[in-house]
Amino acid sequence: MLPYFRSVAIVGKYMDDSALQNMRDDLTHLVQYLQSQELHVCVEEQTARFIRHEGFELASLENIGHKADLVVVMGGDGTMLSVARALRDSNVCLIGINRGRLGFLTDLQTDNMLGELEKILQGEYQLESRMLLQSAVSRAQSQLWQSVAMNDVVIKSAFRLIELEVHVDGKFVSRQRADGLILATPTGTTAYGLSAGGPIMHPDLHAISIVPISPHTLSYRPITVPADSVIEVIIVNAADAQISFDGQGQHALSEGDHIRIARGEQEIQLLHPKTYCYFDMLRNKLNWG
Amino acid sequence: MLPYFRSVAIVGKYMDDSALQNMRDDLTHLVQYLQSQELHVCVEEQTARFIRHEGFELASLENIGHKADLVVVMGGDGTMLSVARALRDSNVCLIGINRGRLGFLTDLQTDNMLGELEKILQGEYQLESRMLLQSAVSRAQSQLWQSVAMNDVVIKSAFRLIELEVHVDGKFVSRQRADGLILATPTGTTAYGLSAGGPIMHPDLHAISIVPISPHTLSYRPITVPADSVIEVIIVNAADAQISFDGQGQHALSEGDHIRIARGEQEIQLLHPKTYCYFDMLRNKLNWG
Amino acid sequence: MLPYFRSVAIVGKYMDDSALQNMRDDLTHLVQYLQSQELHVCVEEQTARFIRHEGFELASLENIGHKADLVVVMGGDGTMLSVARALRDSNVCLIGINRGRLGFLTDLQTDNMLGELEKILQGEYQLESRMLLQSAVSRAQSQLWQSVAMNDVVIKSAFRLIELEVHVDGKFVSRQRADGLILATPTGTTAYGLSAGGPIMHPDLHAISIVPISPHTLSYRPITVPADSVIEVIIVNAADAQISFDGQGQHALSEGDHIRIARGEQEIQLLHPKTYCYFDMLRNKLNWG
Amino acid sequence: MLPYFRSVAIVGKYMDDSALQNMRDDLTHLVQYLQSQELHVCVEEQTARFIRHEGFELASLENIGHKADLVVVMGGDGTMLSVARALRDSNVCLIGINRGRLGFLTDLQTDNMLGELEKILQGEYQLESRMLLQSAVSRAQSQLWQSVAMNDVVIKSAFRLIELEVHVDGKFVSRQRADGLILATPTGTTAYGLSAGGPIMHPDLHAISIVPISPHTLSYRPITVPADSVIEVIIVNAADAQISFDGQGQHALSEGDHIRIARGEQEIQLLHPKTYCYFDMLRNKLNWG
Repeated sequence: MLPYFRSVAIVGKYMDDSALQNMRDDLTHLVQYLQSQELHVCVEEQTARFIRHEGFELASLENIGHKADLVVVMGGDGTMLSVARALRDSNVCLIGINRGRLGFLTDLQTDNMLGELEKILQGEYQLESRMLLQSAVSRAQSQLWQSVAMNDVVIKSAFRLIELEVHVDGKFVSRQRADGLILATPTGTTAYGLSAGGPIMHPDLHAISIVPISPHTLSYRPITVPADSVIEVIIVNAADAQISFDGQGQHALSEGDHIRIARGEQEIQLLHPKTYCYFDMLRNKLNWG
Repeated sequence: MLPYFRSVAIVGKYMDDSALQNMRDDLTHLVQYLQSQELHVCVEEQTARFIRHEGFELASLENIGHKADLVVVMGGDGTMLSVARALRDSNVCLIGINRGRLGFLTDLQTDNMLGELEKILQGEYQLESRMLLQSAVSRAQSQLWQSVAMNDVVIKSAFRLIELEVHVDGKFVSRQRADGLILATPTGTTAYGLSAGGPIMHPDLHAISIVPISPHTLSYRPITVPADSVIEVIIVNAADAQISFDGQGQHALSEGDHIRIARGEQEIQLLHPKTYCYFDMLRNKLNWG
Repeated sequence: MLPYFRSVAIVGKYMDDSALQNMRDDLTHLVQYLQSQELHVCVEEQTARFIRHEGFELASLENIGHKADLVVVMGGDGTMLSVARALRDSNVCLIGINRGRLGFLTDLQTDNMLGELEKILQGEYQLESRMLLQSAVSRAQSQLWQSVAMNDVVIKSAFRLIELEVHVDGKFVSRQRADGLILATPTGTTAYGLSAGGPIMHPDLHAISIVPISPHTLSYRPITVPADSVIEVIIVNAADAQISFDGQGQHALSEGDHIRIARGEQEIQLLHPKTYCYFDMLRNKLNWG
Repeated sequence: MLPYFRSVAIVGKYMDDSALQNMRDDLTHLVQYLQSQELHVCVEEQTARFIRHEGFELASLENIGHKADLVVVMGGDGTMLSVARALRDSNVCLIGINRGRLGFLTDLQTDNMLGELEKILQGEYQLESRMLLQSAVSRAQSQLWQSVAMNDVVIKSAFRLIELEVHVDGKFVSRQRADGLILATPTGTTAYGLSAGGPIMHPDLHAISIVPISPHTLSYRPITVPADSVIEVIIVNAADAQISFDGQGQHALSEGDHIRIARGEQEIQLLHPKTYCYFDMLRNKLNWG
């Protein structure tokens, strides 16, 4: 009997058509394996509909948050990000099975997923909390909407310069003309922030990285501030400006809009195999040496 | 009598309302001064309409190309770029009077414009040719449209990664996932290319700079190729991709679109004061030292 | 009577000859002013010898650490760094009077130093702790020497590639061929680390920035780790490799040398005027906007 | 009979001891093969001494320049650079056999060197000229020494900032405080220049790339100038400054030293297989895609 997890949910997303049959087979194997371990297993209902399989116990994402101890995410980093955000209010643990090459967030490979999961179910894992960013956008003193990101909040104009002001903890930092601005968690520093010239931050660091995208002034450089900082961005001038969260879901911004970004209250619980090492993953993904 | 130029045209553009009265005064002084020098003077008709002045001889931009020897451009670099492109088929010389701080392309300041122009009219100037880029976009074997740029051709997705393939002279260079790609003339290397991490190229260099914007693969770096290279870009994957020329005029691109970029046949003739030095201008604009 | 500080010491260093007379005058004014405030004042003995002044009460740097509450440092950032390191075992507060243009660490200007100091002596100041890095170099299992840095530890070859291995908390990070490697405190991120392409880290962040200098592999990028990490660097291959601390004091390194870098036990207490703002200082020094 | 080359010389250098026996075998095979093709073959005398083989016809590097049509260089890019510089006054063609992984300059692999050479001897090759940089260092009006580089001229201080002034064609460009400065040919832009943040320049471009190394002022960026530019660098302030050529051979520099860098008169003739493509090589070496 496995004491660590009793109820496992499976979520898979954003697969392309060619991967459908593989996904179906892998997911079926996974369910059978987990059931053979006497675990309660359910499949997220959209996932099941997607692979057109009817024999599974189904659950909505919302219910998964209530009843599962462990969520196995089949997909790439994008899938992990959206599932993690959706489940942020529960305290469930997440582990990813990547169907392509290794992801930054999805540690397991399909090839040996059952062997790896067996060890995890036996308690051979590392648990890691990852911080979130909470953003609220206000226009003319009233809040328009708010959202949460695990990687980054990106404020950007479609094709032109955006002009924006950055304040940290009420203090004016800079007025910048740039393609845009990235506010990244440590998790997000290996995503868009890295492409834009930002530093890598170890996930154990409690920090937010502010990375300008193609800034007009060459001496604007990425700045990292403590995670408990409150960052405010004011849109001074913007044609086609938008804000997005983890690269998913855009909202249009207007001149004068005020965005408040701070650490989210919740954290995401990521499970890693015992053998996982952040630096090994970096070396792998970034082709070091 | 001034032997060098006989017919001067004045074009001013893109001013904001607050600058209207100043622009009107400056332009009027300029016309009076040039007439006092026994030069034939005309004002571009949109410019005249814009400042609501009726006493000038007017000419369309097209006619200016035919009848003027010298065009004085009042405005910033953006104005200079659009006038230069419009007049590229004529052989007219251009000089810029910048109404803000010094531009990369507009050498003169309003404060001492008459003194500076006097010297230029007496032949104390440097003439410099600047290359253009000619682009043609094809879809399913048929050409959609073509355009010309003095600074750069920018291929970019609004908010997501674009995936594109670059070929130079028929040879495959790379398949890149990035925010986009800049193809810059030497003139354009101090514009968007510089913000995106590209090198500065001296305008006397006959070259095209290929600068990836926030590339996913960190070892993609700006590459400079000879000006007579033919660069082909194929849109492999694109949501909201667009192409723009000198940051002006966007066209939507689709998957499979093929963009051919090569040196334009025409060149732009820029006039500089005798005292102009490219490196002085760089130091000034980039705050060196 | 001023309750906050009772005993003030003055240290000035590294002035060039031309500044000698000014330094003498400023220091004399400063002593007279502080004495007029009924404070106990002493001058560091080397400083006094340097300006050839004999009327002051003298103290060695070591004694200053024991008896002063406040040390006024006259000089640039380099002077502040060396005084701070020397006094790290005492709990004394430091404030800098910069004789050139504003420094990153020396907030006050000579022009209005007395006015600024008056406010500080009245308690209108901000106190800020800055972390240190403690390094130990071992060869063949025995420790050669150790040193402390407030800005950075730099491992670098004079003219060739150095090859080194980086481990963090016992985990292998990378083997790099590069000009060298910078390990910077947040304070040091605006010094050499910034020139080498590293990020700016706010001084309130508890972190160490690892910045490769001109790495051979283009995907090596600056990494920031928590301040309580233990960083080990092993010299794999080195011609003319050296290690330096705050750019001051070099030691030769050999193949196989092992350098252990971790947060120092002590912290430096910097005093700032009440009006000081880190971001204002950045904008100023980096010519933003 | 092979009409293209009659006399082939072989040069191998800088091998480490472990590679000695392999080198001896490969070189012997190569000589036998070339002799079987009725070509006149000689081995550079140092190379023969190095592998302790006495059966070959020997020639000094100087004589090789006079009598060979083709020089086969066995080694890495460093070997190719030093042989190319040594033979620059002759018009001999060079081709490299790389004994490790593919080099930027050494196209052939040991594995299939005879097959590749056969095609080249039958005329299936591409010939490419690569420009050189000629440098002269003067002190107090008199020339100290001069040297030639195929990759780059590097002016650098061992451990401190160097302060230097750059002039191009007699025009002041900038006074910089930095770790140093790289002046690179297009060939050299994929070497040190790339690590220091410089652009890649296609070898057909006639240009010199000026790349600051870790400049103090963040807006100093690489500048590319036409190949016929004369670049002058004046050492304003230097502790331990040195100049090196292709990373080989250092000379100490002093304050006030004046270095003149311009295109060399000679060019290097590189042979490539017919299938060689510069961009393929870049993709390979830089791990693109």
